[in-house]
Amino acid sequence: MLTLYGRPNSGSAAVEALLAVSGIDHTIVDVPRNADKSAPDWYLVLSPRSEVPTLRLSDGSVMTESAAMMIYLADLVPEAVMAPMPSAPERARYLRWMVYFAVAPYTSDLRMFYSERFSTDVGHAPAIKAKAVIDLARDFAIFDAQMGEGPFILGARMSAADIYAAMILGWSDDVPGLFAKHPKLKRLYDGVAAHPAIRKVWDRNEML
Amino acid sequence: MLTLYGRPNSGSAAVEALLAVSGIDHTIVDVPRNADKSAPDWYLVLSPRSEVPTLRLSDGSVMTESAAMMIYLADLVPEAVMAPMPSAPERARYLRWMVYFAVAPYTSDLRMFYSERFSTDVGHAPAIKAKAVIDLARDFAIFDAQMGEGPFILGARMSAADIYAAMILGWSDDVPGLFAKHPKLKRLYDGVAAHPAIRKVWDRNEML
Repeated sequence: MLTLYGRPNSGSAAVEALLAVSGIDHTIVDVPRNADKSAPDWYLVLSPRSEVPTLRLSDGSVMTESAAMMIYLADLVPEAVMAPMPSAPERARYLRWMVYFAVAPYTSDLRMFYSERFSTDVGHAPAIKAKAVIDLARDFAIFDAQMGEGPFILGARMSAADIYAAMILGWSDDVPGLFAKHPKLKRLYDGVAAHPAIRKVWDRNEML
Repeated sequence: MLTLYGRPNSGSAAVEALLAVSGIDHTIVDVPRNADKSAPDWYLVLSPRSEVPTLRLSDGSVMTESAAMMIYLADLVPEAVMAPMPSAPERARYLRWMVYFAVAPYTSDLRMFYSERFSTDVGHAPAIKAKAVIDLARDFAIFDAQMGEGPFILGARMSAADIYAAMILGWSDDVPGLFAKHPKLKRLYDGVAAHPAIRKVWDRNEML
């Protein structure tokens, strides 16, 4: 049995959705916060950077890094067809955009949401946040320009990379504005959210 | 034939090393810089974020994101044994640390080396850099604490994740100091650099 440690509307949502879509038996543990918003000590043993999600596998080993979990789980259950297999021609494109979302929009989001963490002077936070907003808009514009016909990253078929991308698109501070500017990204998001198992997970995570 | 676009001592070094170790036939193109250090326009078509490396596959498709290339290439040539296959018990650990290096130390490095890019006020760069140095030290300490027996991430056998980690360790502004503090990380680095094919690539990239 797998255990996913997360919080509603956090980076655990995409992993939770992939588990649901793939029919992988799992338990979900919501990670509490101390009064100062920090995670409890028992959680730091699992996640030394104090981030959600963390995934505990049935052999007791622990994974951090949501994109790593997505790649791992999608390959583990080939019959769910959530990833092109290693020898498939679409594999490169699939991995490119999965990792792109982890290193570009996701890290821009972290700078936007937690801007006080990125300088030794907390007074710099507003200007760091302003730059993160600019970078995030550029990250999404670059992705949009490379989307092709869609509606999904690999075309007609949804993959784990779309679930991951949709979660991060949903974190925008102005989702309607983002989708008005980038109709292709709205189509991807709507396609992902239309999957009945994902819709349930999105609802639990208070996502659009 | 694959084409790797990179620059000496940049993020292309690990991909170049993996190509060499795996015996994958490839061409290397060094990406020139304009007088203002920007990349030429033809390169932006391949890499919209103007980053190295970019990988062009034999079918003409293009990959960005070095960690995605590492995962892709290691799976593509199973006989090189640079990755545990998707069903192997070590797969989760392998992907966890590959992605960790991409999202944690690599992005701390970007904030350290290009600190002026992370605020709308370039005057904030020194304090942003100072925080990146603190974060990078923490990223490496967390990895060290989870290394286990070593010498490699998966134990006795080197994988693509070690090559990637070694490259990023080598970017430290004080490699001897880092290794004095973290002997396990030195052992990993030395183990990677001892591979004859990698040694050649490290030399071409002016790495330790």
